[in-house]
Amino acid sequence: MPLNKINLNEKFSKFSKYWSPRIIAEMNDYQFKLVKIKGEFIWHDHKDTDEVFIVIDGNMSIEFRDGIVELSEGEIHVVPKGVTHKTYAENECKVMLVEPMGVINTGEAGGELTAPNDIWV
Amino acid sequence: MPLNKINLNEKFSKFSKYWSPRIIAEMNDYQFKLVKIKGEFIWHDHKDTDEVFIVIDGNMSIEFRDGIVELSEGEIHVVPKGVTHKTYAENECKVMLVEPMGVINTGEAGGELTAPNDIWV
Repeated sequence: MPLNKINLNEKFSKFSKYWSPRIIAEMNDYQFKLVKIKGEFIWHDHKDTDEVFIVIDGNMSIEFRDGIVELSEGEIHVVPKGVTHKTYAENECKVMLVEPMGVINTGEAGGELTAPNDIWV
Repeated sequence: MPLNKINLNEKFSKFSKYWSPRIIAEMNDYQFKLVKIKGEFIWHDHKDTDEVFIVIDGNMSIEFRDGIVELSEGEIHVVPKGVTHKTYAENECKVMLVEPMGVINTGEAGGELTAPNDIWV
């Protein structure tokens, strides 16, 4: 029975690469991932699952075809399954993602921002 | 396509009852719930699922049969499926829970701290 706790600040201090999610915990077949973002991501969607963004530090936005959601520390947005979106942060923003195991950050869009989906921190 | 964001502080300001989780978001068949805790809960487990505790403000502990985990703001613990546990907070602590829809806060233990599992805030 593991008695370890996960400290978000400590985990964030251990990596610096943008747009490269790191797994910190698993709950059943779901994962909690930390990601640092800066700049503009690409349009993509996740055909099979909702995706949760929780802003831990900083500001970011999630653009949709018909609008935009601005998020700050302590704010959450659930991107529904199949909805095309694009994330953006003017300055570095620290985010926790919650989604099923195996999700690819760029969905099926591919491209150079596609990151491994199995790196723990 | 809902463009709403969820602000944790705003949601916490809308209820005061201890040990009474409030749903703030759904992701597939999982829910994000906020709960304010103070004092001592009861021993219980969740036979069918892991349960994630994320401390948003304050300090709490999760006691197990063979140890204890102390959590502060920005810290997370995953209680594994079927593992008996008891939560405690000396002073009010604000927590976000992540777990499948339908989980009962007291598991199968019952008792007066058993809360409804379908209240949104």
